[in-house]
Amino acid sequence: MPRPVKFFYDLLSTHSRALYMFFEATKIPYDPIPVCATKGEHLADGYKEYVTRFQQVPSIIDDGFKLSSGVTILKYLIREKLIPEHWYPRDTKLRAQIDEYLEWQADNSSKVFNTFVVQQKYPEEVRRDQRTVGERVQEYRQLVDSNLNQLERDWIVPGRFIVGDRITIADILAACEVEQPKIVGVDPFEGRPKLAAWLEKVRYTMTPYYQEAHQDFYKFTEKVALKN
Amino acid sequence: MPRPVKFFYDLLSTHSRALYMFFEATKIPYDPIPVCATKGEHLADGYKEYVTRFQQVPSIIDDGFKLSSGVTILKYLIREKLIPEHWYPRDTKLRAQIDEYLEWQADNSSKVFNTFVVQQKYPEEVRRDQRTVGERVQEYRQLVDSNLNQLERDWIVPGRFIVGDRITIADILAACEVEQPKIVGVDPFEGRPKLAAWLEKVRYTMTPYYQEAHQDFYKFTEKVALKN
Repeated sequence: MPRPVKFFYDLLSTHSRALYMFFEATKIPYDPIPVCATKGEHLADGYKEYVTRFQQVPSIIDDGFKLSSGVTILKYLIREKLIPEHWYPRDTKLRAQIDEYLEWQADNSSKVFNTFVVQQKYPEEVRRDQRTVGERVQEYRQLVDSNLNQLERDWIVPGRFIVGDRITIADILAACEVEQPKIVGVDPFEGRPKLAAWLEKVRYTMTPYYQEAHQDFYKFTEKVALKN
Repeated sequence: MPRPVKFFYDLLSTHSRALYMFFEATKIPYDPIPVCATKGEHLADGYKEYVTRFQQVPSIIDDGFKLSSGVTILKYLIREKLIPEHWYPRDTKLRAQIDEYLEWQADNSSKVFNTFVVQQKYPEEVRRDQRTVGERVQEYRQLVDSNLNQLERDWIVPGRFIVGDRITIADILAACEVEQPKIVGVDPFEGRPKLAAWLEKVRYTMTPYYQEAHQDFYKFTEKVALKN
């Protein structure tokens, strides 16, 4: 019996949610180890030494091999474990299209959607920023809107998944990211029926793992919304 | 004989330079088609329709198959063409480490180093920004410094390439990116002997393609430096 993969995650992080769903749906034996990033647990010395020098979630340790970063971990698991073909098909053109989406996401929406997380990494930048929190949220919302419009226009085809007719890693990574702007009270689906229908398809396909992965996140966004 | 890959590029773009070197070093038959992004040639309707709906460089068309985004294209070529193993080894752990570096780069340095490019995409954001150009360059330099320090500390081991003893796609993508801050007059190697020695190793290994890929870029940075 292979030893279960140690999985370090925080379900407020988009990549952690995607990986949680992936572990559950594929039945890869794993050992879930929650890490509370909002409390800074990923910055502790022990985490740095024992888990990852990059001090981030998600991370895994697979039989002693340490690996960080969500997309990297997904692709590693796909190579190493018994995983249904549809998640990342061997067909070289389909695979290229999935990679193309993931690179688009890394270069576009994830730069914008996770701005608030990035700014925690560069606190000096926030202090130097002369805009009020209201102005920053306003600007963030405009950038999120423009990115969501682009996502719907360039990537979503009614009745299909992002690449082809079966769910792939592109869909679960995209879905978790699209949920993220709820943190500042943006409803990503308002006025975007194609995007909403696609998300519903992903959610339905990933039931009950989608709901499990998102329940704490939804509670968090509700709490933040009440504050505003 | 396979038809040559149509390669659309602008050597001021980091990923275009990396791909240029890769095509040259691997001897994949290709048809170079320069696109001047600073003149907006990638935004023309014909480019959108004929080459890529994402209106970006680098892009390729391989026997009718259209593909954009630098890392995606590199990995597609590695699957499709006859390429020496060392560029992206089949060993699953080495491959995971290369992916881990590339994801780190996409999440960190490329978000920062290409800020000026990103800001051209969101001109409203720049207009709303109340800081002067001088202040923005100053802030950019601080972020670049912090990223370069992290790169040297976490990824560079003297005498080695980023992953292992042979050059991989991680090295050429990293090298082209490290050159980028020269646009605002930052010398990335000042005070960073490990980084400088590694870059020298990459440059030497990639001679004369490295120099060919960078000659226009160096002229451009010199022109910009004279303006400041």
